[in-house]
Amino acid sequence: MPLTVSVVELADLVTRVLLRHGVSAENAGPVAETIVAAERDGAASHGLLRLPGYVSTLKSGWVDGRAVPIVTDAAPGLVATEAANGFAQPALRASALLLREKARSQGIAALAIRNSHHFAALWPDIEPFAVEEFIVLAMVNGRQRMAVWGGNRKLFGTSPMAFACPRPGRLPLVWDQASSVMAQGEILLAAQRGQMLPEGVGLDAEGRPTTNPQAVLDGGSILPFGGHKGSSIAFMIEIIAGALTGGPFGFEDRSHEYPGAQTPKAGQTVILIDPLLVPGNRYFERIEGLFGAVVASGVERLPAERRYTRRQQSLRDGITIGDRDLATLQELLA
Amino acid sequence: MPLTVSVVELADLVTRVLLRHGVSAENAGPVAETIVAAERDGAASHGLLRLPGYVSTLKSGWVDGRAVPIVTDAAPGLVATEAANGFAQPALRASALLLREKARSQGIAALAIRNSHHFAALWPDIEPFAVEEFIVLAMVNGRQRMAVWGGNRKLFGTSPMAFACPRPGRLPLVWDQASSVMAQGEILLAAQRGQMLPEGVGLDAEGRPTTNPQAVLDGGSILPFGGHKGSSIAFMIEIIAGALTGGPFGFEDRSHEYPGAQTPKAGQTVILIDPLLVPGNRYFERIEGLFGAVVASGVERLPAERRYTRRQQSLRDGITIGDRDLATLQELLA
Repeated sequence: MPLTVSVVELADLVTRVLLRHGVSAENAGPVAETIVAAERDGAASHGLLRLPGYVSTLKSGWVDGRAVPIVTDAAPGLVATEAANGFAQPALRASALLLREKARSQGIAALAIRNSHHFAALWPDIEPFAVEEFIVLAMVNGRQRMAVWGGNRKLFGTSPMAFACPRPGRLPLVWDQASSVMAQGEILLAAQRGQMLPEGVGLDAEGRPTTNPQAVLDGGSILPFGGHKGSSIAFMIEIIAGALTGGPFGFEDRSHEYPGAQTPKAGQTVILIDPLLVPGNRYFERIEGLFGAVVASGVERLPAERRYTRRQQSLRDGITIGDRDLATLQELLA
Repeated sequence: MPLTVSVVELADLVTRVLLRHGVSAENAGPVAETIVAAERDGAASHGLLRLPGYVSTLKSGWVDGRAVPIVTDAAPGLVATEAANGFAQPALRASALLLREKARSQGIAALAIRNSHHFAALWPDIEPFAVEEFIVLAMVNGRQRMAVWGGNRKLFGTSPMAFACPRPGRLPLVWDQASSVMAQGEILLAAQRGQMLPEGVGLDAEGRPTTNPQAVLDGGSILPFGGHKGSSIAFMIEIIAGALTGGPFGFEDRSHEYPGAQTPKAGQTVILIDPLLVPGNRYFERIEGLFGAVVASGVERLPAERRYTRRQQSLRDGITIGDRDLATLQELLA
């Protein structure tokens, strides 16, 4: 029978699962928070569904659940954080105060996290900064799954990028998207259901276009969105999240040496800009005019609005955990 | 008969055209430089082909060829420049030294230019910073030509974005791309030739999908590349280049009030990051490994390589100006 719990109760449950599998209390909190935030906002692909992957990766020894991030004040506008093979979220949390202070005083600041495992949605990382009136840009690289445009094998991760900006008196605009034309999870689902993929989604192990999802999964590669232009975006992400931070590149992945490992060990960069420090831009007076024009042009929903609606429902009515997720939770807590 | 000139001679010719049409000496140099750089590198769409557009815009009064940019040291990491309705390139040149100094000492810095006319390729703006070993990201917004994904009318410009990063002992990796699925120039060309467009390129004035290039030009709109994902990128560009700088949004365009005006009056943001200031990333030791892996995966050419090859030819053999461009040059100089 499905169970309805509050956000606070779910955070407690997920935290207990992580603690049960060796994650330190300092790390369990921030990781649980992104899982719960996704479940709360109806982003099921990054919610409870991911919990078994976290646990099997912890068991494999690929990620260190007790890692202690080391935050370095690298320059007036730069924070460099060694995640020490731990999850990305505790590294971000350990760095956030310094990053925020720098951006507020310098106008712009960047956080470069390396050797971090990011297995969550990216929007929960950046939304809080936009609530604090920063413009935010974040990029994460990951283990190889995607070909470069014109290439014949996987090389980059699915390369998510997220952007957020503040709105006066409203929750921020936030978007978060992979640079692949389709998510790895969608390809897995198609394979399980015996469905074929659309054209232009993947290559097989020999680098030939295929619509067979199993061929993509068996040593093939996903293609970037939008052809060479999406590939350029992913290339930038590999450089800003990988080369700049010092995190492993997608093609340097070693997770296959740890059976059960599902998280990418890579890097993450977060850039904050304070729009109030640009003289004369009248940011907060003008920005709603832009959103108004977008809506007037026939766009039904701004990015993140669906999640915000779902969030209100969850906070009011609780989050219903289906039988399958409930069984998983009980199993992972046993 | 075609004429072959050196890069230096061509810069002289183009500068004289701009001076002849009222551009100040301070502004003519930087504008001529991007036109010549494009012609030199085989990027004809942004080379001499654009010169009549510059001149007709100057004649219309829409742009001020004698504008004096005002550079403000807005914060330790921020330069804010009022282009005063002039071209973007002189504003960038006036700001470059301060921007560079800030990025070198702060680790990251941004330049926000507003009320600027950017009618050129974007890569000539950023390549020099990457030669100086900065990672560079630039965005320009522009007058409305493109619909938001899900929208029925034009709202954003074609929203170019460019990225560059340094390579040890080599010219930088540079890419520069519009966020539209096709360039405005390509649609004009199709209309002139009576060719139809592929599916998914444009909407007509009623917001309906069309393959008729004239319908796109007559009050219709171009679509973003890669569906909603490219649209998200363009949305970010409108905010970072428009809202952050204080430059006009695409939908605030007033160029139609100035017959002959062809340039967009908008904003531009350039972000520099110094990769040497992130401790332990070994950027210059690792970056060639990434490029090597990309090439080994079957990618024939890294972004910008074709331009670099063409540049070497131009510097060695000169630039050949065809009869048509030659006639235009003579006419504009008369």
